Amino acid sequence: MTEDTQTRQSPAVTPEEYGVGARFSVHPMTDDFVSIILNALESTDANGLEVHTDDVSTYVTGEESSILRYLTDVIASVGHSGVHTVAHVLFSRGCPGEVTCELSGDEMLAPAELSIPGTTGLRASAHWSLYPLADSGETSHMAVIEKAVQVAKESGTFARPEHYATRLEGDLADVLTTMCSGWLRAGREVQHVASHGTVSLHSPSWR
Amino acid sequence: MTEDTQTRQSPAVTPEEYGVGARFSVHPMTDDFVSIILNALESTDANGLEVHTDDVSTYVTGEESSILRYLTDVIASVGHSGVHTVAHVLFSRGCPGEVTCELSGDEMLAPAELSIPGTTGLRASAHWSLYPLADSGETSHMAVIEKAVQVAKESGTFARPEHYATRLEGDLADVLTTMCSGWLRAGREVQHVASHGTVSLHSPSWR
Repeated sequence: MTEDTQTRQSPAVTPEEYGVGARFSVHPMTDDFVSIILNALESTDANGLEVHTDDVSTYVTGEESSILRYLTDVIASVGHSGVHTVAHVLFSRGCPGEVTCELSGDEMLAPAELSIPGTTGLRASAHWSLYPLADSGETSHMAVIEKAVQVAKESGTFARPEHYATRLEGDLADVLTTMCSGWLRAGREVQHVASHGTVSLHSPSWR
Repeated sequence: MTEDTQTRQSPAVTPEEYGVGARFSVHPMTDDFVSIILNALESTDANGLEVHTDDVSTYVTGEESSILRYLTDVIASVGHSGVHTVAHVLFSRGCPGEVTCELSGDEMLAPAELSIPGTTGLRASAHWSLYPLADSGETSHMAVIEKAVQVAKESGTFARPEHYATRLEGDLADVLTTMCSGWLRAGREVQHVASHGTVSLHSPSWR
């Protein structure tokens, strides 16, 4: 398949049916973590999204731009407490469940044009990894990753390659937008794409 | 390739050259986080491993059993502080760098037989995801994931499927061993395999 045929939208598939979503957790390292996290979750507008929190992470599904805005707002809300905070984010598309996918192999949902959230004023450093799970034999996962890293380079948040990850630096919103944009870049060519990022704010190492 | 031909060891490749390693971060949610983390890193035996810590995560490379023991010991040391702690773990093999792999496509390092660490006495719940990055067109990544989930079911830590993850529950050592075993199960069939886990200890939701 060429990229063009692959990116055509299947009109019958919603983002929820395509498994477009995220899991994230946010860790303010303070004795007061419960109230900071609950306040961030309660005060953030989850309009248009389905959100479930359990004892390990929070699951979000809906449109890509809404997910990006929601993650940015929740993590920024925690970060504005001023304490050292680490967030972990998993983006996924193309496989709604754990191992059972009801999508056919050639069903593709074109990635949305992202609405970019406003900057947060919070400096972030992050390790970001991308996993395009292509089985076709026609797509090299490394070539797809390389295009997504190029997106990061153009965004201004690319810092350097690391083992198993790309280091990103910049405003929290820009770092999360880069992760989301790279994930969607890969989603133009591959149905099932997951991406993980670990984001650090107010690191004591920066002092 | 059949599984047998794929699992043959390339005698010239060391775990380090094959990119066998992990990145992890551990987050005790207390004002005293710096001393707890530094104490855990300093008091844990890193014999046989190369370890680098930066402001986002800690990189470890070496033999699989040594990595599993090291991660278990560091996270348990933090967890024994008794405070709510979340750890994030990334295992990787088959691609030493970010996007540049110097391994040839058919070079395989057989997964080691794991030495299982002793239990920690710490109850853990986790979300675990596995990414077999096969390009051959002969290997379905979903079939490989399913075999690794079967390893989890046999280990006794499998709790249930979640969106984008498998929920694991049990002693911290058993949960980390399941993640590592599933990652190595996939490594029998696929060269480049990454796996991510988020592990929660002393969750306030359990009270």
